[in-house]
Amino acid sequence: MATTPRVRMDRDSRRELLLDHGVRLLATHAVEELSIEMLADEAGVSRGLLYHYFSNKKDFHQAVVRRAADDLIAQTAPQSAGEPTELLARSLEAYVDYVRANHQGYLSLVRGSAGGNEVLREIYEEARMSMTSRIFELSTKEELASLGITDSPGVRLMAHGWTALVEDVVLEWVRDPRGIEKPRLIDSLTASLLGVTQGVR
Amino acid sequence: MATTPRVRMDRDSRRELLLDHGVRLLATHAVEELSIEMLADEAGVSRGLLYHYFSNKKDFHQAVVRRAADDLIAQTAPQSAGEPTELLARSLEAYVDYVRANHQGYLSLVRGSAGGNEVLREIYEEARMSMTSRIFELSTKEELASLGITDSPGVRLMAHGWTALVEDVVLEWVRDPRGIEKPRLIDSLTASLLGVTQGVR
Repeated sequence: MATTPRVRMDRDSRRELLLDHGVRLLATHAVEELSIEMLADEAGVSRGLLYHYFSNKKDFHQAVVRRAADDLIAQTAPQSAGEPTELLARSLEAYVDYVRANHQGYLSLVRGSAGGNEVLREIYEEARMSMTSRIFELSTKEELASLGITDSPGVRLMAHGWTALVEDVVLEWVRDPRGIEKPRLIDSLTASLLGVTQGVR
Repeated sequence: MATTPRVRMDRDSRRELLLDHGVRLLATHAVEELSIEMLADEAGVSRGLLYHYFSNKKDFHQAVVRRAADDLIAQTAPQSAGEPTELLARSLEAYVDYVRANHQGYLSLVRGSAGGNEVLREIYEEARMSMTSRIFELSTKEELASLGITDSPGVRLMAHGWTALVEDVVLEWVRDPRGIEKPRLIDSLTASLLGVTQGVR
């Protein structure tokens, strides 16, 4: 039998592992439901140890949401170069997969971010905007122009609204796919960014 | 000097008047901030009298939100017949005016509806959907077809998302108009419904 060498993990790696567990809990629980006790059960460690990594529940919630947002931003990052609409479609597909895999947690993030906690709201808004802002950052003026989009405050405002549309549509679709296949959903969402920004002065 | 005859108001009319005051408070306060005391001050009546009309704070909040939603639905109702896009533009204009006049309250409705209260959420969702569903109810199949829209589950899903877009864009615009004039905003929003629903299978 092969033995795995016992590696003493450093504090940061251990904290990251604990956050993995926390994010996993988010798939089926709302942020505000997460407790240190729950994480201790999930990770198979003592509560006392957890207080070594998270000073309190608020700190723990914030760290889990920050990590969930970072995962979302990383997962929806375009994997390689390509046409703007192709990049967009791939980002959207990753986003749909993410929302599907983390439904409860994502829903609670959307709803909770609307609630009192300003820090959670900011983290969430950052993750939410990452897809739209990438379109503008990764595309040249010429590429945008070829899609009929001119970067302007009006276009940015509509693109901001488009992220709200995507979120609403994907959450609704995950809740009830109503016979719509994923590729068709992605097509509609991709086309809709052009639909809301094209021709805006 | 003309004298106004003293009319003894019936219970319902008096309650409606009190709700007028409640909705007025919503322009500058979040739903959860509203108290019976505040309404007593605003309406110039005693707290005791108010408990005659609203059994508790929750009942009062619910009645104010119901009234605010009814006002929104009534104000955004198309005033007369017309082309679908014309009706839509007029509804959107009324919506923008409503959000501008009731900014704090509407914002709290959006955020609060995301929170715990299911009744408030339902009332809000109903008001929110009224604009989109009207497009489908008031337009004939032929009118929709002439706009390139075929009524289908996919189109309804995208139209649902469009209401989230409108809400996000209008709230952002009221917060910071960034040099965009209202007519231009209305044009962009009107065009965007077509942009997200046209060509969806």
